Amino acid sequence: MDKIEETIQKIGPLDQDAMKKAQARLDDLTKPQGSLGMLEAIAKQIAGITRTPIPDLPKKAAILMAGDHGIVKEGVAPFPQEVTSQMLFNFVNGGAAMSVLTRHENAKLYVVDVGVAQDLPDVPNIIKKKVAYGTRNMAEGPAMTRQEAVKAIEVGIEVAEMAINEGAGLTAIGEMGIGNTSPSSAIVAAYSKMPVREVVGRGTGVDDERLKIKISAIEKALSVNNPDPSDPLDVLSKVGGLEIAGLAGVILGCAANRVPVIIDGFISGAAALIAAQIAPLAKDYMLGSHLSEEPGHKVILDFLGIKPILIMNMRLGEGTGAALAMNLVDASLKILREMATFSEAGVSSK
Amino acid sequence: MDKIEETIQKIGPLDQDAMKKAQARLDDLTKPQGSLGMLEAIAKQIAGITRTPIPDLPKKAAILMAGDHGIVKEGVAPFPQEVTSQMLFNFVNGGAAMSVLTRHENAKLYVVDVGVAQDLPDVPNIIKKKVAYGTRNMAEGPAMTRQEAVKAIEVGIEVAEMAINEGAGLTAIGEMGIGNTSPSSAIVAAYSKMPVREVVGRGTGVDDERLKIKISAIEKALSVNNPDPSDPLDVLSKVGGLEIAGLAGVILGCAANRVPVIIDGFISGAAALIAAQIAPLAKDYMLGSHLSEEPGHKVILDFLGIKPILIMNMRLGEGTGAALAMNLVDASLKILREMATFSEAGVSSK
Repeated sequence: MDKIEETIQKIGPLDQDAMKKAQARLDDLTKPQGSLGMLEAIAKQIAGITRTPIPDLPKKAAILMAGDHGIVKEGVAPFPQEVTSQMLFNFVNGGAAMSVLTRHENAKLYVVDVGVAQDLPDVPNIIKKKVAYGTRNMAEGPAMTRQEAVKAIEVGIEVAEMAINEGAGLTAIGEMGIGNTSPSSAIVAAYSKMPVREVVGRGTGVDDERLKIKISAIEKALSVNNPDPSDPLDVLSKVGGLEIAGLAGVILGCAANRVPVIIDGFISGAAALIAAQIAPLAKDYMLGSHLSEEPGHKVILDFLGIKPILIMNMRLGEGTGAALAMNLVDASLKILREMATFSEAGVSSK
Repeated sequence: MDKIEETIQKIGPLDQDAMKKAQARLDDLTKPQGSLGMLEAIAKQIAGITRTPIPDLPKKAAILMAGDHGIVKEGVAPFPQEVTSQMLFNFVNGGAAMSVLTRHENAKLYVVDVGVAQDLPDVPNIIKKKVAYGTRNMAEGPAMTRQEAVKAIEVGIEVAEMAINEGAGLTAIGEMGIGNTSPSSAIVAAYSKMPVREVVGRGTGVDDERLKIKISAIEKALSVNNPDPSDPLDVLSKVGGLEIAGLAGVILGCAANRVPVIIDGFISGAAALIAAQIAPLAKDYMLGSHLSEEPGHKVILDFLGIKPILIMNMRLGEGTGAALAMNLVDASLKILREMATFSEAGVSSK
């Protein structure tokens, strides 16, 4: 817990002076003021995060946390649980969507086992930080102990620090875990007070019958555990997941080190929600990416005040939406850095 | 006119066989089927466009057409007309937003004077294809003769062919022209039959008073000219613009050569609308990019059945939204090409 407390203490507000300087430059560039919309807003936010009027973030990292979920015993997911570990090999071997997109974005991919149900062989590039062999079935009791949740958050902080020490100036988060839309829905329901059926989607593609099973399992988890929204660690440990806890830790670690962190879809969003409950200032370090097909994702983004910039009907997770947004973040910084001002270009203003 | 007819004749339907093969591969990759949404749809469409099940489009071009507008005499724009030619130098000198973003996307930028009001000195990289010194004031009569509109379309076809001959496999379109949201609004009103005030926006940033002037000038242009929506050349010449005609030509030229073309915002959208009226099959060669802040843009996209993938509150034009989408198109093709299948990766399916 000391590690978490220490990290929270380090999270400060955005640098208003750097943001003011960035805004002044944006307003002087050869375009109608504000006409580049979110490109300008992102550049300004990153100026505030990095305390730099014209920031440059050449090195990028994507951190992917993997964990399994006891709730799959209820039949909430169409894919078998072993897919979680099988996909870890696919990530590091370069064949998964997230492998392709991080290569495309020139970002280093950190793949972390924070709670996969199986023992993994020693494989290069899988970071082994297992806190438990998956969560327990939250429909029958708490998914984790409070101590396990704390440990998983600490893993996230550690991996964020590792990536930042290796030079990452911009991070994206993603996850893998068969069944993990169920804990994400439970977390959103706990905070939004919305009925479970309104924040549940089809995940990897459940049919109508399985969707009913999924809704009832999540409802059971909430009623059995009665998580307390004023205590994010209570919510996280009772109805969350190890990879969700890990990603909350990544966000806290990035915020503490003034590194912007791009949030992916529904599960990453649930982690962002938890991180913002633990440390409200962390919200200012988050950048939105896509709007997922999962209906609960919009609820999270509205709750956090994050605007998605990509609407691509995606619902894969892994960090794929966040990876795609990296190029847009790069573009926003280049606009701030490379565009000419009206006077430099000899262009008449209004 | 022969050039246009000949180009239209060359435009064929998408290759269903290549699309079927692309879809089969997409469905076999290590992700739930369809979970990458628009990334999958774009890859499949490009397979159909290029007649290639796994296409690769390494060379990219952005074509920016510039023209001036007689309607500025009515006071529809806050920036002076000379900004159009001043910006051309900014584009080729690398300081404009579109210069920065095409560099970022590794795309070659073609800057074309198809109708700027001033004579331009011989400057490297400005392609001089002036059809007229801007349009006439459409509030008083036709913006162009029918022959001028035809010539400007032909310029667009020629420049598209030039870019394609230089290797471009993917193109984006953009424009520069002080006052050009007014003809775009007129075109949208002519086709949608919606009231002008519902398809007019603030362009580069007009205040309430100037917005009223703009609406009334466009209404006047429509009533003076009475353009015939069943004759796209009539609409284009009476209430269009030289750069809008040029871009319609670029789209036709790309479609005839089976090259996908990314549509930018409101003005590019008006050109796309005209192109689709001239040759309905051309629609299949268009890819959407962002949703502009200009209210008429959504009307155009709905009319054409194009889905925007970026929602960034942008309203600059130049092709900036289309340039940003290039990276997403690249990503979609890499997903199709580089991801592992379930059997290759040893991952269990449902």
